[in-house]
Amino acid sequence: EGTHETHDHGRSKFIDFPFVSSAQKNLMVDLVSRLENRLHSQLLPCTLPPDVQYYQSQTATAQASLHIRSGSDDSPVDFVLGSWVHSELPTGGSLDITSLSAYLNSSTDAPNFVFEMIRSSPTMLVLILDLPPRKDLVLWPDDLKTFYEDTQLDTHRQALERVPEVQPYFSSSLYIRTVSSPTAVMVRIVTENGGVERMEEIIRDHLDPISKQVLGIWLDHCACAKRDVGEAERAYLNKRDGLIRNKTIEIDLGSSFPRLFGPEVANRVLEAIKGYFTV
Amino acid sequence: EGTHETHDHGRSKFIDFPFVSSAQKNLMVDLVSRLENRLHSQLLPCTLPPDVQYYQSQTATAQASLHIRSGSDDSPVDFVLGSWVHSELPTGGSLDITSLSAYLNSSTDAPNFVFEMIRSSPTMLVLILDLPPRKDLVLWPDDLKTFYEDTQLDTHRQALERVPEVQPYFSSSLYIRTVSSPTAVMVRIVTENGGVERMEEIIRDHLDPISKQVLGIWLDHCACAKRDVGEAERAYLNKRDGLIRNKTIEIDLGSSFPRLFGPEVANRVLEAIKGYFTV
Repeated sequence: EGTHETHDHGRSKFIDFPFVSSAQKNLMVDLVSRLENRLHSQLLPCTLPPDVQYYQSQTATAQASLHIRSGSDDSPVDFVLGSWVHSELPTGGSLDITSLSAYLNSSTDAPNFVFEMIRSSPTMLVLILDLPPRKDLVLWPDDLKTFYEDTQLDTHRQALERVPEVQPYFSSSLYIRTVSSPTAVMVRIVTENGGVERMEEIIRDHLDPISKQVLGIWLDHCACAKRDVGEAERAYLNKRDGLIRNKTIEIDLGSSFPRLFGPEVANRVLEAIKGYFTV
Repeated sequence: EGTHETHDHGRSKFIDFPFVSSAQKNLMVDLVSRLENRLHSQLLPCTLPPDVQYYQSQTATAQASLHIRSGSDDSPVDFVLGSWVHSELPTGGSLDITSLSAYLNSSTDAPNFVFEMIRSSPTMLVLILDLPPRKDLVLWPDDLKTFYEDTQLDTHRQALERVPEVQPYFSSSLYIRTVSSPTAVMVRIVTENGGVERMEEIIRDHLDPISKQVLGIWLDHCACAKRDVGEAERAYLNKRDGLIRNKTIEIDLGSSFPRLFGPEVANRVLEAIKGYFTV
């Protein structure tokens, strides 16, 4: 298979989101398309090996798709990462994670984009939606103003907060809390009374528009903004980005991946991801 | 009046907390005593002018007490600030704020201590309790571990979260959110159904023990810990502390103080506070 065939084959598997509800699939497909359409020629084809673009555990109780596209040389985008993970739970249900994130390189100091839906039951969903800052906003209050205040990012978090089924979610990892922005959407949505229909409604009527608006802010004000970054600042960004990426792999994937997919598969995928996460 | 008389007179006015409920007064007096007893000889008498230690608006609808004690030359404590503010509201009720905070100097890189209760009605209380970090914890994950993970600070936030009347509170200032730690207690407590009795119960049974435990962690692991701080780090701390203190004055006091006390009184008090907040 050539690069483009590998890319096309992996992409169709990724964009299929075969295990999630129609509202969640629509949302994911829409976010991915918007991001790809806007960044278009800046994104190179996915060159991950086929057994990393799609992989499963030995007993096939867990399967996953991973789609990473690097930015071209003249792009501020380092890479864009999309994925889904499906795992049958011993209790009978399933765990489903769908995510889309975008990392910028040190030619810009604008925030990254992170979107993740974690569903451990049809009536329980954790949503993480954020533009994590790449500089200490305490030392750079102008960046807080530019990216978070002037863009009115918090209004979207506030809108979601008003939905009765939405509660704040505190990650058990203090590091994850530390890297998030002051406007981060980190919520747990529980629709025990309304069931799976109400969850579909919340995804369609609330998560869908809010996610698109936040992605739109990121595309307009971060990915496509012209920023001046000096030598010293570039070194600072490389150091901070590197630390965050290492910790993210360690916390997010280091422990759960081997458990879900077995050490051999987990190791193969982690090694492939590390290639991109190294600054 | 000599220095000690001014100090004693101002302190008795401060420690009296004349406008808050008995549970809130007990809690405040206890916190102040614990902090003073532990730091004892490190704290110099309060030398604020009498008309800054106690002040009121022209019509006496708002009054306040301010008590600041600098640390001695060999102490890591820069200063300790206690205050209460009482203001009658046009609606008939009153706004009462009681606070205690402690700022360390650049001989240490340990976090500060912040405690604030904001009561705008007998059944509504906002509590802020935090050890705000003085370094970017993303770049110093060891400090995250030392001060926040190993001390199990988050267990106290979690305990409070389980009280049914307790909801998360998001400051409207993104800067205030940015300077807070990943274990910050920022909550709104509403006891509309249980009334003022239930609020007293929550303060006595939950806020009281939790606040004391967090203050204890700060005293043991921050104020009294031996830390090595090099020249470069000291400059970094001075810069970051300075920025935070300026912004804190601007956000916290710059707008509300003139409104409550009139421009003349507000200016007198702000100028006095700025003397301490300058790094």
